[in-house]
Amino acid sequence: MSLLPKLDDDQASPAARAVFDDIRRTRNNDYINDFWRVLANDPPHLAQVWAQAKSVMAPGALDPLTKELIYIAVSIANNCSYCINTHTASARGKGLSTAQYDEFMRVIALASTTNRLAIGYQIETDQKYLAQG
Amino acid sequence: MSLLPKLDDDQASPAARAVFDDIRRTRNNDYINDFWRVLANDPPHLAQVWAQAKSVMAPGALDPLTKELIYIAVSIANNCSYCINTHTASARGKGLSTAQYDEFMRVIALASTTNRLAIGYQIETDQKYLAQG
Amino acid sequence: MSLLPKLDDDQASPAARAVFDDIRRTRNNDYINDFWRVLANDPPHLAQVWAQAKSVMAPGALDPLTKELIYIAVSIANNCSYCINTHTASARGKGLSTAQYDEFMRVIALASTTNRLAIGYQIETDQKYLAQG
Amino acid sequence: MSLLPKLDDDQASPAARAVFDDIRRTRNNDYINDFWRVLANDPPHLAQVWAQAKSVMAPGALDPLTKELIYIAVSIANNCSYCINTHTASARGKGLSTAQYDEFMRVIALASTTNRLAIGYQIETDQKYLAQG
Amino acid sequence: MSLLPKLDDDQASPAARAVFDDIRRTRNNDYINDFWRVLANDPPHLAQVWAQAKSVMAPGALDPLTKELIYIAVSIANNCSYCINTHTASARGKGLSTAQYDEFMRVIALASTTNRLAIGYQIETDQKYLAQG
Amino acid sequence: MSLLPKLDDDQASPAARAVFDDIRRTRNNDYINDFWRVLANDPPHLAQVWAQAKSVMAPGALDPLTKELIYIAVSIANNCSYCINTHTASARGKGLSTAQYDEFMRVIALASTTNRLAIGYQIETDQKYLAQG
Repeated sequence: MSLLPKLDDDQASPAARAVFDDIRRTRNNDYINDFWRVLANDPPHLAQVWAQAKSVMAPGALDPLTKELIYIAVSIANNCSYCINTHTASARGKGLSTAQYDEFMRVIALASTTNRLAIGYQIETDQKYLAQG
Repeated sequence: MSLLPKLDDDQASPAARAVFDDIRRTRNNDYINDFWRVLANDPPHLAQVWAQAKSVMAPGALDPLTKELIYIAVSIANNCSYCINTHTASARGKGLSTAQYDEFMRVIALASTTNRLAIGYQIETDQKYLAQG
Repeated sequence: MSLLPKLDDDQASPAARAVFDDIRRTRNNDYINDFWRVLANDPPHLAQVWAQAKSVMAPGALDPLTKELIYIAVSIANNCSYCINTHTASARGKGLSTAQYDEFMRVIALASTTNRLAIGYQIETDQKYLAQG
Repeated sequence: MSLLPKLDDDQASPAARAVFDDIRRTRNNDYINDFWRVLANDPPHLAQVWAQAKSVMAPGALDPLTKELIYIAVSIANNCSYCINTHTASARGKGLSTAQYDEFMRVIALASTTNRLAIGYQIETDQKYLAQG
Repeated sequence: MSLLPKLDDDQASPAARAVFDDIRRTRNNDYINDFWRVLANDPPHLAQVWAQAKSVMAPGALDPLTKELIYIAVSIANNCSYCINTHTASARGKGLSTAQYDEFMRVIALASTTNRLAIGYQIETDQKYLAQG
Repeated sequence: MSLLPKLDDDQASPAARAVFDDIRRTRNNDYINDFWRVLANDPPHLAQVWAQAKSVMAPGALDPLTKELIYIAVSIANNCSYCINTHTASARGKGLSTAQYDEFMRVIALASTTNRLAIGYQIETDQKYLAQG
């Protein structure tokens, strides 16, 4: 159970309602995630985080599916169950294929291992790569 | 300074040398990263990790640049300086543009925030998303 | 379900019972958290951790509410659901207002982002700050 | 060495320069941290992160020193060397006393331990605390 | 609910079935963990991870119980509930005594604290230890 | 550079000096780690952490080398460079062989991968293991 209540449309302040409306318009979908309903307890923060999310996840130099995969990669490393569940659903909605998901998880598995080997052995970055910085 | 020595080609065992040769062939590049030179102290482990990396990072359903970005996302979340430095260099070598890198870092920034908000407020996954599992 | 049983007062050893009694006296509250009931399976460890907690969380140069917020900040970053739930309840018991909680979560959100940007870009500490060490 | 160059005032775009100016005005200090000079490579992101930092770290229901301590707590848990160094300097500038710093580090030490014990024993939140949510 | 289905023996591909058979033979136990049933959705990855696990966890220079404790230590630090639960059960099956488990958890508690103190104070490695590298 | 000075024997308070003396006696070695010299700025905390370390790392139901390996496993997962360097040196001093170190790092690599797969796929603990709790 979340530490603040999930606000229904009726319980949300006008400022929070305006954000809900923009979420609906942007996603062309009436459903509002519980994440936003909890954040609605602090309307200015809700507005800031939503504006950031709306801008960052929009198509650009990287396509929306690639952005979702980067997002999920961070969420797995941070062990955020909420974020893994909701953004894997989003990635599927944006066309993630079974083969892509398999490869994605293999990259996660590889990086998780090599990160710890580099840290465990305290390997310093090769001069060659620093020189490229 | 790494906890095990970086083995030169001369110091590496024949098994480790064979892996070095395959790294050179696969990458079409004579340079061997210090990561592999340190792992060469345990040749069977070197062979296993390299075989995994070679297979996982190859082109497939996801393109090589996307794989690098997923890899770097994990490495930033795990704070692996070695991995961030070397794979950002790889991503650039695979064509990462300035605009793509900007967007990548914005997704990292967003997910880092929203992960902690979802955890901090202890928000449970919406029934709707669990039902899709 | 926890990996060791939560010991009732009857099941706890005399040494563990003595700690339970001190927890009740210190907090002026009869309720013993499950955390302590599980730790009671290793009475010397229970005694050590409780002595540390009792001393560290007491009023001092920092007020008790500030200490709770620092504690919760660590717990969110470590993703400890038990600790987030119980210490947010404690913070509320120590007078955490809605406005304070909102600001607290905004600092968590900010630091979570800026930490990852500094790590992601591998930014080194300015000479100016090192010189102050 | 950071992965993007630290931009001097001369190298920064007009949009980035405007942010530098606001940082100087807000802090009443001519010095610009390398963090902002690296972020200046992506001016819109610089503007967004600075606007967030300026708003979040301002005095409010929590005093600025308390906010710095919460920020440092997150940074220690995330192992962000840059953030620990610069914000400990900020906290000192905002009056952090030796006694406060000692107590702060003791809370960090305590929470780091109890977080791992709760996770290691897989202790579930007491019904009593969930009921308060 | 896991993001991919747990495959029954009937649902698993022949390649995945072959891995299930090897798990049963190796462990001399008919039960297959849900971890492997979920990984079975990507049979080559299942085969790779199982081959690695089978080889790594086998008796060698370190005894199997010590390996389980190292594994659980990583899992607690990574907050992997699944891994903590299943490998604590394995460790018990390999003879973990109550006294050993108590001591194990005390080492976890100690290292969790001292790690954060070393990071929080930004203590650099003594020259003496680097010289031994 | 650490955020508090490393105190020489001359700079340390009598209480801190007493701890330094006990460290020397216990280890039968005149050298005092920088970790303790920095903690000496807060003598009661120094005394508490040292008492805990002395007790926890002593031989018991687990042998000292096994305890070092558990300690290093946590330190790698937490990315504590100081702790990895100093305790790997300690483990070598306690007889860690090359074969043991290789196997240790392979367990770290395995657990780092399987932890992330279990989290990434959101695999729940099998009923069978929960029933053993």
